[in-house]
Amino acid sequence: MPHRMVYFFGEGSADGRGEMKNILGGKGANLAEMTNLGIPVPAGFTISTEVCTYYMDNDRTFPDGLKEGVESAIARVEEAMGMKFGDPENPLLFSVRSGARVSMPGMMDTVLNIGLSETTVKGLIEKTGNDRFVYDSYRRLIQMYADVVMGLDSEEFNKLLDARKKNKGVWHDTELSTEDLADLAEKYKVKVYELSGKDFPDNPMEQLWGAIRAVFDSWDTPRAQSYRKMNDIPEDWGTAVNVQAMVFGNMGEKSATGVAFTRDPATGEKVFYGEYLPNAQGEDVVAGVRTPRPINIAQKKKGDEASLEELMPETYHELESIRQNLERHYTDTQDIEFTIQNGKLWMLQTRTGKRTAAAAVRIAVEMEMEGLIDRKTALLRVEPDQIAQLLHKRLDPKASYSPITKGLPASPGAAVGQVVFTAEDAVNWTEEGKQTVLVREETSPEDIDGMNAAEGFLTARGGMTSHAAVVARGMGKCCIAGAGNVEIDYASRTFKVGNTTVEEGDWITLDGTTGEVILGQIPTVDSELSDNFLTLMGWADEFRQLSVRTNADTPNDAVRARDFGAEGIGLCRTEHMFFGDGRIKFMRAMIMAADEDERREWLEKLLPFQREDFLGIFKAMAGLPVTIRLLDPPLHEFVPQTHLEVEELASELGKDPELLKARAASLHEMNPMLGHRGCRLGISYPEVYEMQARAIFEAACELAGSGVEVKPEVMIPLVGEPKELSILRALVERVATQVMTEKGELVDYLVGTMIEIPRAALVAGEIAEHADFFSFGTNDLTQMTYGYSRDDAGVFLKEYLNKGILRKDPFQSLDQRGVGSLIKEAFEKGRLSNEDLHVGICGEHGGDPMSIDFCHHAGLDYVSCSPYRVPVARLAAAQAVLRARMRGLL
Amino acid sequence: MPHRMVYFFGEGSADGRGEMKNILGGKGANLAEMTNLGIPVPAGFTISTEVCTYYMDNDRTFPDGLKEGVESAIARVEEAMGMKFGDPENPLLFSVRSGARVSMPGMMDTVLNIGLSETTVKGLIEKTGNDRFVYDSYRRLIQMYADVVMGLDSEEFNKLLDARKKNKGVWHDTELSTEDLADLAEKYKVKVYELSGKDFPDNPMEQLWGAIRAVFDSWDTPRAQSYRKMNDIPEDWGTAVNVQAMVFGNMGEKSATGVAFTRDPATGEKVFYGEYLPNAQGEDVVAGVRTPRPINIAQKKKGDEASLEELMPETYHELESIRQNLERHYTDTQDIEFTIQNGKLWMLQTRTGKRTAAAAVRIAVEMEMEGLIDRKTALLRVEPDQIAQLLHKRLDPKASYSPITKGLPASPGAAVGQVVFTAEDAVNWTEEGKQTVLVREETSPEDIDGMNAAEGFLTARGGMTSHAAVVARGMGKCCIAGAGNVEIDYASRTFKVGNTTVEEGDWITLDGTTGEVILGQIPTVDSELSDNFLTLMGWADEFRQLSVRTNADTPNDAVRARDFGAEGIGLCRTEHMFFGDGRIKFMRAMIMAADEDERREWLEKLLPFQREDFLGIFKAMAGLPVTIRLLDPPLHEFVPQTHLEVEELASELGKDPELLKARAASLHEMNPMLGHRGCRLGISYPEVYEMQARAIFEAACELAGSGVEVKPEVMIPLVGEPKELSILRALVERVATQVMTEKGELVDYLVGTMIEIPRAALVAGEIAEHADFFSFGTNDLTQMTYGYSRDDAGVFLKEYLNKGILRKDPFQSLDQRGVGSLIKEAFEKGRLSNEDLHVGICGEHGGDPMSIDFCHHAGLDYVSCSPYRVPVARLAAAQAVLRARMRGLL
Repeated sequence: MPHRMVYFFGEGSADGRGEMKNILGGKGANLAEMTNLGIPVPAGFTISTEVCTYYMDNDRTFPDGLKEGVESAIARVEEAMGMKFGDPENPLLFSVRSGARVSMPGMMDTVLNIGLSETTVKGLIEKTGNDRFVYDSYRRLIQMYADVVMGLDSEEFNKLLDARKKNKGVWHDTELSTEDLADLAEKYKVKVYELSGKDFPDNPMEQLWGAIRAVFDSWDTPRAQSYRKMNDIPEDWGTAVNVQAMVFGNMGEKSATGVAFTRDPATGEKVFYGEYLPNAQGEDVVAGVRTPRPINIAQKKKGDEASLEELMPETYHELESIRQNLERHYTDTQDIEFTIQNGKLWMLQTRTGKRTAAAAVRIAVEMEMEGLIDRKTALLRVEPDQIAQLLHKRLDPKASYSPITKGLPASPGAAVGQVVFTAEDAVNWTEEGKQTVLVREETSPEDIDGMNAAEGFLTARGGMTSHAAVVARGMGKCCIAGAGNVEIDYASRTFKVGNTTVEEGDWITLDGTTGEVILGQIPTVDSELSDNFLTLMGWADEFRQLSVRTNADTPNDAVRARDFGAEGIGLCRTEHMFFGDGRIKFMRAMIMAADEDERREWLEKLLPFQREDFLGIFKAMAGLPVTIRLLDPPLHEFVPQTHLEVEELASELGKDPELLKARAASLHEMNPMLGHRGCRLGISYPEVYEMQARAIFEAACELAGSGVEVKPEVMIPLVGEPKELSILRALVERVATQVMTEKGELVDYLVGTMIEIPRAALVAGEIAEHADFFSFGTNDLTQMTYGYSRDDAGVFLKEYLNKGILRKDPFQSLDQRGVGSLIKEAFEKGRLSNEDLHVGICGEHGGDPMSIDFCHHAGLDYVSCSPYRVPVARLAAAQAVLRARMRGLL
Repeated sequence: MPHRMVYFFGEGSADGRGEMKNILGGKGANLAEMTNLGIPVPAGFTISTEVCTYYMDNDRTFPDGLKEGVESAIARVEEAMGMKFGDPENPLLFSVRSGARVSMPGMMDTVLNIGLSETTVKGLIEKTGNDRFVYDSYRRLIQMYADVVMGLDSEEFNKLLDARKKNKGVWHDTELSTEDLADLAEKYKVKVYELSGKDFPDNPMEQLWGAIRAVFDSWDTPRAQSYRKMNDIPEDWGTAVNVQAMVFGNMGEKSATGVAFTRDPATGEKVFYGEYLPNAQGEDVVAGVRTPRPINIAQKKKGDEASLEELMPETYHELESIRQNLERHYTDTQDIEFTIQNGKLWMLQTRTGKRTAAAAVRIAVEMEMEGLIDRKTALLRVEPDQIAQLLHKRLDPKASYSPITKGLPASPGAAVGQVVFTAEDAVNWTEEGKQTVLVREETSPEDIDGMNAAEGFLTARGGMTSHAAVVARGMGKCCIAGAGNVEIDYASRTFKVGNTTVEEGDWITLDGTTGEVILGQIPTVDSELSDNFLTLMGWADEFRQLSVRTNADTPNDAVRARDFGAEGIGLCRTEHMFFGDGRIKFMRAMIMAADEDERREWLEKLLPFQREDFLGIFKAMAGLPVTIRLLDPPLHEFVPQTHLEVEELASELGKDPELLKARAASLHEMNPMLGHRGCRLGISYPEVYEMQARAIFEAACELAGSGVEVKPEVMIPLVGEPKELSILRALVERVATQVMTEKGELVDYLVGTMIEIPRAALVAGEIAEHADFFSFGTNDLTQMTYGYSRDDAGVFLKEYLNKGILRKDPFQSLDQRGVGSLIKEAFEKGRLSNEDLHVGICGEHGGDPMSIDFCHHAGLDYVSCSPYRVPVARLAAAQAVLRARMRGLL
């Protein structure tokens, strides 16, 4: 064993330092750090992780000298605190906590009040004059000790407590009398003997060693082991033990306890923000039994009781100076806990303060301005995922409500509206001036008009990449998907959640950020892009290397995304376009056509619509590249589903309904995701892709003629075999040349493909010979690499995540080991065979920070994501660069 | 240019040799070879491929000296043949043919009769006394020359011919008179001038050079170019030109022409087998206008006219000795063409003779016995795919019939039976002693009893790996799948093909080897495993390194496969087992159960059945490994499909039908192939896998107790993430230990997984840590790697194959570039992390020779295929070794 096993801290100096996490654990290092900063921390000592390792390696025995080390540290603590451990008159109490390098569930948390015994209880009552508090502490110690040190069933003790409350006819622990508590402590001791055949140790030193041993033992519980296995934490790291003097904020009028933030965690404003309670314990502040008071005058509102600043001005100013000290030292907003014991201020904890998205942005930018941190650090301080919140309307943080159920938070924001169950109703009700929320089992492309009309969507099925979710994110609307408890009955126009029935027209509110569904109208607040936000985005752009594009199918989306900083369109899907008014009819007629000639007739009618689509998008994106994906979904998605609709269509087209039904049936597929779609359609019905190519180049030529810069990039979907691309590339080039010749204009354009089939990644070298660009379609690629249907996987994916089989939903965060290795392979093979190949990603992962980090390292040129994720992606892309630099990778 | 551009052959010696294919092309080398063997070949010369390359590189000009070379070669030919090119009295005629290193479609085939002109026509008539033949040759020369040399539209000449026939009121060319033909020749010449503005060259030398030039030009046609691109044939190989003297078998009574095989191509018997016609041209033998005569007495049947052996005994014996010479030289059965011109025998061609499967086996084995070839060569002489024919009943080769339609030849063999449209009818009719053929849109696992009863299956949808196809191959029954022209009307119990309506009870015959559907009962012949076959298989086993297992789900299949040489079961699917009588009810009840407890009750009832299954299979495979795949398909495949069935089940179980319907609906998936199946079920419902594991180990222990050697290998399907396997492996091990403790027996067993999800291949290293074996499930792996649904891809796969986008159906022959690269990656990563990993393949590809070759090279331990493919696999595995040795790879 190394010489030093026990590290004292207290009275302004510590044996350890903040960097010594390996030996002291996170908590111990932190306590040493604070002590060394001159912050008044209750004295204590840390037993090193190396002792834990020794203990494990030596049949759970302690190394020689540990006993002496601990005893001498206790003496130093006693001196520092002016109390004595086990002293009948002036007893010192200890808390004992575990503390590994990283915090770890499954390990022993805390045993408080170590040192209370039959004699010290009396001394403490004498000293504090608060017998209720002392007996409550005593019975808590016994229960906690029995549970975590002696391994007895906590439930047995709760039963005794419950019996007593029942007997007294009270509900809350706080309603029990001092006698009740003293009596309970005795009953607990009897129970300990009953259950274990051993007495609860009355000797403080015996209690302390029992607790220390329990901490070390807890390193090796099955739960802790399996956590380590899952998180690759080595067995031999071990845990440290922190033994610290307890202080009490409930020792009378000169005592108090409180929590505070060094800046406002809601707004980020640079004000000292906190609450306290005089003559109280820490848990009283949190428990809400007494109403906490504001910490300073600045925060006082009418009717508030005296602030700490008023009540104990000196202590407050000491606290305020500690606040500044901490911010300077940690260069970040701190969340602190303090206790004032008989007028003496003790800091119990400081940690990085959690904050809202708005606060995170403001704090980062202002701290940079203050010179506290540099620009890179400021960028790394904001969680990219968080800032999406800032772009959407959200529920008023001050509103209180209780949700009736929770689904997947599929698209952030808030929606308040009256329930409708069909897309048609959403359209009609909106035209009548109503606000609606569309509730469906799941949505389909046919619902697109209704989705445009509604405020938000709630679906009972489907996951984070279901149709509803994808469309919602594109539109920037709120969506809760896969709310499994929602049972919809279309016939009666109601849905049920448990016993609650919600009818058509009832108001509901959706919180797309949490997935909560709430009855009634909850107030919302609008988004606002603060100057700080824009500043931060500007900094991100200075650092990032990845381009950020957007997935946008309409001019509106394109404009919005451009406002958010999109540098082009990475994915413009053309299928939604065919569902619009006046189009779906032609589309269906085209699909139902008897032969190619008839198909061409109907395509002729669709051409002007499609040209208009592209005109709008090209204009909105003037000067920037626009990647247009040719028709992708299987044709049956456009086909009428019900007999009635088929008959309507038949009479419109003057065709035999039986013929149409037969055609519709022949388009049906067992596994449409693996079916006749994407470029497979382009091969079977080249006239469809010809029409689309013509529309693209007619629009491009028209704008080029009027001086607008257009940069079309034609993307062929679902390529798995190089010949598919070479054939369809030739088709696009032929049409492009034709149109440009007809119009007398020259437009530069690219032709490329999505890499979304595993085979495409495997033969990417050959595919790249025919491609100007690759765009990874990670939704489909994930689907096929895992063999998970996005439409169906919800059922077992949830289970897989719960059981820890998957750490993340691979449709949300790129699976780097599997899908990622295909991406790397495809990228490398592609670039090797075509060094000019431009490579991006346009799946949902293009907006996910971890996936963006991966894309940066993989060497991609750009990511493309839904408009509202563009700022997220800009920040994430910058962070990817900064993190790489920190790791010395760049 | 190299010195020699022209290679003469004739009179027993040639300038070239058989190995000079690169310079002489295949045909030229062959002619040189035959000449050098002392075989009487009409003299001629070959212009080398190097001249072609020069011609192409030099703006289609000929190198200096070519003219002289050709002229001197002509002189040698004239001398050899005793005739003169262009001579008015004794004219020599030439054929001109292309001949590259490999035969190549799109290139010029042949111009015959070069040298006929207005003067030589007269001389030839004089010489042969056969003016009709001469004029017919003349008009053919003009048409052929106009077409292939001058590039004129052949149709224009056919029109003239047709007009003449119409005018004369005759149907066949042969009915035209000499005058008609002479007149047509004149009209052709006028037409040539009309179409080209040029005269048909009357100068023989000009004709010859025109034809030579045309051969070279044909190297560069778009069709030839694209063929080369598709087959990776270099542009600079070029083609040779073969100019050869023509001989005529129609010069009178001492002339004749014929074709022969050195052994009987139908049976392989070592007899000289052939036909001839006196005073006839080669095409007369083939055209069937005159009935050919047997070549020798041995073949003469009652009523046959004199054989060649009788008519020209000396010539026959010369031919017979050439036959022996050729077999000795080529060490294989030859297919020869000969012409006797005025008593002189000329050999026109010899090539390897095509043969039936039975003949191939007999010839290979007998030639080895004769010492003509060694054992390795014998093994390489038989196409593995062919021998599958020998194992199945097949249509009597002597029967004649015309099919009404053709589908995919999904499982070989023949089936004759009365049409039924439901599995139930197949069962009932069979019980009444009838033979049935089951006709369905597609089959499903529910049809299993009916499939067992029927002789064969015809489906309108589905591909080579559809349910019907896979089950049929497993059962060794005949199946034609995806017969798209078959329109089934279940309601009226009829199907239609075009205008033909087939009713229930009508007899039809299926040829599973060709995919042909025939009306009525066609006679069939049984399979027989000849001694030669068994000898060949024994030789294969001497060489092969791959083990061959079988995919078998029943004891019957297992026994059959073992008879065919299977060395274990590589895939025993457990799902079919649940459809049996008395089981499906429990299975459904289990699926419909309200909770785990109820599920366990029903599983309890299934356990004895499942144990019986395994007892039977283990017994059949005593001493050999048996890989059992735990339940794989999505549960909804077992669920009743119609409302009526649901209600029946509900009343049986005493449950609310609405509840059952809701449960059935909740099991429905959009893309079941990517859904809740395989190990995902095992994770969600561990009790199901527990029951299966218990059944396996109870059966194994019972047999082990009675001295039967059992080697169970438990296979977890659809693993994509290592944790899935580690969890389920632990489950299997737990149950195994339990059962073995209960029974007091020890059974060695393995636990492994199928690699059938692309991700599994990508993270195979981690998966291998938990696996004793990998088995590549290439059906699913292909499905997901390509993103092709096996159930649906038929539609576009056919198109892809027709358009040459894919060369082979990847579900039939392993896609080596894509899927194969995943297999290699998985194999390498797997073995790296677990060097004892046993690796095989159990997809349909396990029975495909090319895929087996791949598996051998990839280093796999075994392939597993349906019972009837086991001999195919044994042979293919041996060939893989031999081919590798030949390439110096081993």
